[in-house]
Amino acid sequence: MQLKDVDNDDCLYQLLLYLVIKMGCNCDYVTTGVAGLDPHYDNCISTWSELHPGKEYPKNADGSIRLLNEHLQGLEVDILYHLGLDTQSYDLPAMFGDVKFVCIGGTKYRMREFAEYIAKELDLPCKGSKLVNLTKHSQRYAMYKVGPVLSVSHGIGIPSMTTLLQEVMKLISYAKMKDPIIFRIGTSGGVSIPAGSVVVSSFGLSGMLEKTYSIPVLGKMRSIPAKLDSRLCQEVHSLASDKDDFRTYIGGTMAADDFYRGQARLDGPFCDYTEADKMEFLNTLCNLGVRNIEMEATAFSAFTREAGIRASIVCVTFLDRLLGDQVTPSKATMMDWQKRPMIVVGRYIKEYINKQ
Amino acid sequence: MQLKDVDNDDCLYQLLLYLVIKMGCNCDYVTTGVAGLDPHYDNCISTWSELHPGKEYPKNADGSIRLLNEHLQGLEVDILYHLGLDTQSYDLPAMFGDVKFVCIGGTKYRMREFAEYIAKELDLPCKGSKLVNLTKHSQRYAMYKVGPVLSVSHGIGIPSMTTLLQEVMKLISYAKMKDPIIFRIGTSGGVSIPAGSVVVSSFGLSGMLEKTYSIPVLGKMRSIPAKLDSRLCQEVHSLASDKDDFRTYIGGTMAADDFYRGQARLDGPFCDYTEADKMEFLNTLCNLGVRNIEMEATAFSAFTREAGIRASIVCVTFLDRLLGDQVTPSKATMMDWQKRPMIVVGRYIKEYINKQ
Repeated sequence: MQLKDVDNDDCLYQLLLYLVIKMGCNCDYVTTGVAGLDPHYDNCISTWSELHPGKEYPKNADGSIRLLNEHLQGLEVDILYHLGLDTQSYDLPAMFGDVKFVCIGGTKYRMREFAEYIAKELDLPCKGSKLVNLTKHSQRYAMYKVGPVLSVSHGIGIPSMTTLLQEVMKLISYAKMKDPIIFRIGTSGGVSIPAGSVVVSSFGLSGMLEKTYSIPVLGKMRSIPAKLDSRLCQEVHSLASDKDDFRTYIGGTMAADDFYRGQARLDGPFCDYTEADKMEFLNTLCNLGVRNIEMEATAFSAFTREAGIRASIVCVTFLDRLLGDQVTPSKATMMDWQKRPMIVVGRYIKEYINKQ
Repeated sequence: MQLKDVDNDDCLYQLLLYLVIKMGCNCDYVTTGVAGLDPHYDNCISTWSELHPGKEYPKNADGSIRLLNEHLQGLEVDILYHLGLDTQSYDLPAMFGDVKFVCIGGTKYRMREFAEYIAKELDLPCKGSKLVNLTKHSQRYAMYKVGPVLSVSHGIGIPSMTTLLQEVMKLISYAKMKDPIIFRIGTSGGVSIPAGSVVVSSFGLSGMLEKTYSIPVLGKMRSIPAKLDSRLCQEVHSLASDKDDFRTYIGGTMAADDFYRGQARLDGPFCDYTEADKMEFLNTLCNLGVRNIEMEATAFSAFTREAGIRASIVCVTFLDRLLGDQVTPSKATMMDWQKRPMIVVGRYIKEYINKQ
């Protein structure tokens, strides 16, 4: 390593990185002592080249994330339009540098509830006080910060989620968050598991039954693997308890681009297939290892992996799609059930905090 | 026509429909006396078979919409989950039967502002009073009703928009709205037109440069034409005025599935193409007649056309993408500009009301 080739500011980081490479692994393990866990996270430097052939390593020695888009370095100011933040008017490292967990989910109500729940669970000074929506004036999403946790809404579907996720990734990098972990906390339809169950996703599956996310770039289709970090998935699942009044599964998650036809529902305004066609499709999903259907998993898996940021999806199921299409549980039941992924993710965050 | 084959409740409708067919046209013209307008709307009975070969006519004689999914008739109750409404607990015809215009747009703030604007423009009794979000407890979208106008938010991107749109279509049918018109009032990036301009969309273009919306159904890709009603587009455009402090264009609208790479931006977390590649792509769009880029046009065009509901997209542009990627106008300027599509659509609604 030629230290004379790097500027002084980067010197310490590069030295640390050099030592880390020599040591062979830079996993910042959260859960240890559980049998059967994969040995490394997918963004460990020791396995990076094997899992991401030809791709530059995106983590700095201090665990912060480098975005590999060189055009960003030419920007005088970067406006995170949908977050209502920018790199000039805000001191992003001071505001967000201590964040370890970024948790995203559909509605702003759920993500405020999650922030309140975490504040209470971690016994943070802000518990019980009114939380401020940090991105209110963008009028698009809602973002709350409680200690090391950022809780952000992403709306419905892949384009809404990736718009938010990509600005969150820029925020993660600009704020120099260390070894960040992104969780999606969601709701979904189950496939052959009881309503109210929790699923920790092992992979994302597209509506075309491929484990990829496809996105047109400059008029050409590009497919990105929709893989999630196996060890993180196993760690989160290991925190499920026999005493829980729900079961937690590991399984594939289909991301549909549509709530009705795209999920083989019969009750949308358009439907020209039969109930038998629908059941055949749902059984195909089941045989592929899919345990639930939502509208974000492929792109979430693909983008977080591409950025080298560890991520996991934890969803509750509101119904078993083999038994019906309509979402019939009462409001109170759904409000209760949607706390379940929060409980599971909350345990993981507490495990991390208790190790500090 | 065998009247004995229809039940008594439908008798008058069928008779009216029979007369209408005999008369050859059932367009409920809003704008007349403007040169160069297409002779019929796309959901006119006189041109339906030609424009939609082999497809059943979806309008009843009174102008209400029949959904052609036969499965719906087997439902005891239909839960419009994301609207927080259902067909059992709510008298939907009494609540919404008088609606003529359903206007949808990204944020709940904009759609509340639009409802307030229309209440004032139409001098409705509710003007100036606090509007009630009719769908608040679904925690997903916001919906306001002012006289014959329903103003509803749809979030960002196609899956979020179609989830809302399809439940709105069910509401349109269940409430028996007569000859409904759906407007999307949006924000966008312009292509070779000044920032602050308004575009009335003539067609939707996908990220693969096709005038279709592609959706996986039961694991197979289906492509639906992304056409919009030409006469409605021309009528709306005819209300643009030389006295406006902005220009209103007719043009194609590209619907991207992504805010960054999907729109050839250089400033996302990921970008592996050059500025020259980007410019070449934007110039290709321009040559195809595209005047703006947003994230909903293809699916909005495809689904409304498929349902036989007249629809139009009217967007303001916040920047000219040939000049940059970042959204730089001040908050105040953007708030001012996003009123422009409201002004144009508001004129159309007033034109209709004044003819009653």
